[in-house]
Amino acid sequence: MKPELEKALRVNAPFTTSVLEGFIRDEVQKVGFQRVVFGLSGGIDSALSAYLATGALGKDAVHAVMMPYRTSSQASLDDAMEVVDDLGIGYTVVDISGPVDAYFDAMDERLEKKASNLRRGNRMARERMSTLYDLSAERNALVVGTSNKTELLLGYGTQFGDMASALNPIGDLYKSQVRQLSAHVGVPRSILDKAPSADLWEDQTDEKELGFSYDDADEILYQWVDVRLSPDEIVERGYDRRLVEHIVTRVQRNQYKRRPPIIAKLSSRTIGIDFRYLRDWGV
Amino acid sequence: MKPELEKALRVNAPFTTSVLEGFIRDEVQKVGFQRVVFGLSGGIDSALSAYLATGALGKDAVHAVMMPYRTSSQASLDDAMEVVDDLGIGYTVVDISGPVDAYFDAMDERLEKKASNLRRGNRMARERMSTLYDLSAERNALVVGTSNKTELLLGYGTQFGDMASALNPIGDLYKSQVRQLSAHVGVPRSILDKAPSADLWEDQTDEKELGFSYDDADEILYQWVDVRLSPDEIVERGYDRRLVEHIVTRVQRNQYKRRPPIIAKLSSRTIGIDFRYLRDWGV
Repeated sequence: MKPELEKALRVNAPFTTSVLEGFIRDEVQKVGFQRVVFGLSGGIDSALSAYLATGALGKDAVHAVMMPYRTSSQASLDDAMEVVDDLGIGYTVVDISGPVDAYFDAMDERLEKKASNLRRGNRMARERMSTLYDLSAERNALVVGTSNKTELLLGYGTQFGDMASALNPIGDLYKSQVRQLSAHVGVPRSILDKAPSADLWEDQTDEKELGFSYDDADEILYQWVDVRLSPDEIVERGYDRRLVEHIVTRVQRNQYKRRPPIIAKLSSRTIGIDFRYLRDWGV
Repeated sequence: MKPELEKALRVNAPFTTSVLEGFIRDEVQKVGFQRVVFGLSGGIDSALSAYLATGALGKDAVHAVMMPYRTSSQASLDDAMEVVDDLGIGYTVVDISGPVDAYFDAMDERLEKKASNLRRGNRMARERMSTLYDLSAERNALVVGTSNKTELLLGYGTQFGDMASALNPIGDLYKSQVRQLSAHVGVPRSILDKAPSADLWEDQTDEKELGFSYDDADEILYQWVDVRLSPDEIVERGYDRRLVEHIVTRVQRNQYKRRPPIIAKLSSRTIGIDFRYLRDWGV
């Protein structure tokens, strides 16, 4: 990372931790809940969320759900277990192979072809969402999201899958900021050091799949989204034009994943357009 | 319905049909798609969406997906088939019993109790969403939503389940307006006349489950949301206070289902808070 960008993206870790723990506490209590659940993959994002939620609510109010598929790596589950042990929180392991395979066995036969990795990955992400929401209903707990700002902006995630949650403490932190905060709160070394991966197939890494590094993405996204430089201005500061344009296009094309469904406006107050705000309710 | 409310909720059916067909055409083409898929339950809402989508895009661009569970009624599937036949559109029937049962067989045993009807219903709705999105990826088609304004406001639906879609043509129409428009576009008589039901168990009807009629809900919601009367003013016009308060509370309590996840704000531009608008992009 360029030194000036590294500085701009540096977080005040103790302060940020306290803000995010306060956010979790407030949002959970505001809607009358005491407990949260979340998917713990063994990756850094969900590990950070686990530490923040436990700091906010105490270990008895936090429950982790590990949802491996039969091809998921044992190392991921081991890393998740290390988090659970370190925090002393409860956990459930739910193997999602049964329902996922039941679906594709029938669908692949019907379509007479094997589903692509993309379709399989999206199905798994939605299976995990559905399982997490089922357990949240069963435990009377809110679902905490674990998507960071970089992947939310890039749309590198599954809509109504891993992007779905009730509240997300880390959605305004770029990947490099997630790393800093994770080191501060005590996320285990093995998780801090490994290459980010969705663990959908062997040797998959996010950066290989995306085609660029998270550091480059963070630098470009920060200057475009937060500093509001134009793509041209970013290129002038020494970034590859094709990469800048690729990233900007990706953010725009995936805008739909970050929004509720688009509703055709017919009345004076339409859901998602002008019926939205608590302050409008005037009860 | 009171005569003045019936008048206020009356739709100009030919004009509304043309607006909604235009909406579907525009939104689909804007994002570079030609085709749509949607879940066709046999109920009035998805039937209306089928007619509107076919009017907008032509029958070859529209594909219906029926997703019965093993306890779903044959009458629902028959009604859906009548729509498909009438419109001449393609369809796929996907039995969701396999993946849903695979999940609950394992989960019920683990938790040593049978999941509630609520948990089972939500799981089915999310299974249908996941299936529909998988077929949309496979067919390169957008998912059309089929939730009306009454159920969206009441939160009578499953978040990330039947409430999930790319675009929803009927989300600004109250249930009574859906009925009017459905009669106009030619939805079959058997569908127009039957009691609305999620078809999750035998003899289930929406109105029995909700505890009030759709007509009462529409009258109260319209006066509160669109006319912006206060609950007290609505009561003064001759509605039961407990019902008015129950409905208002329901809308407020379910606001979360109509919104993207809440993200903790840390930066100057946060997803879902102030990073949202196309006009902000200035590319």
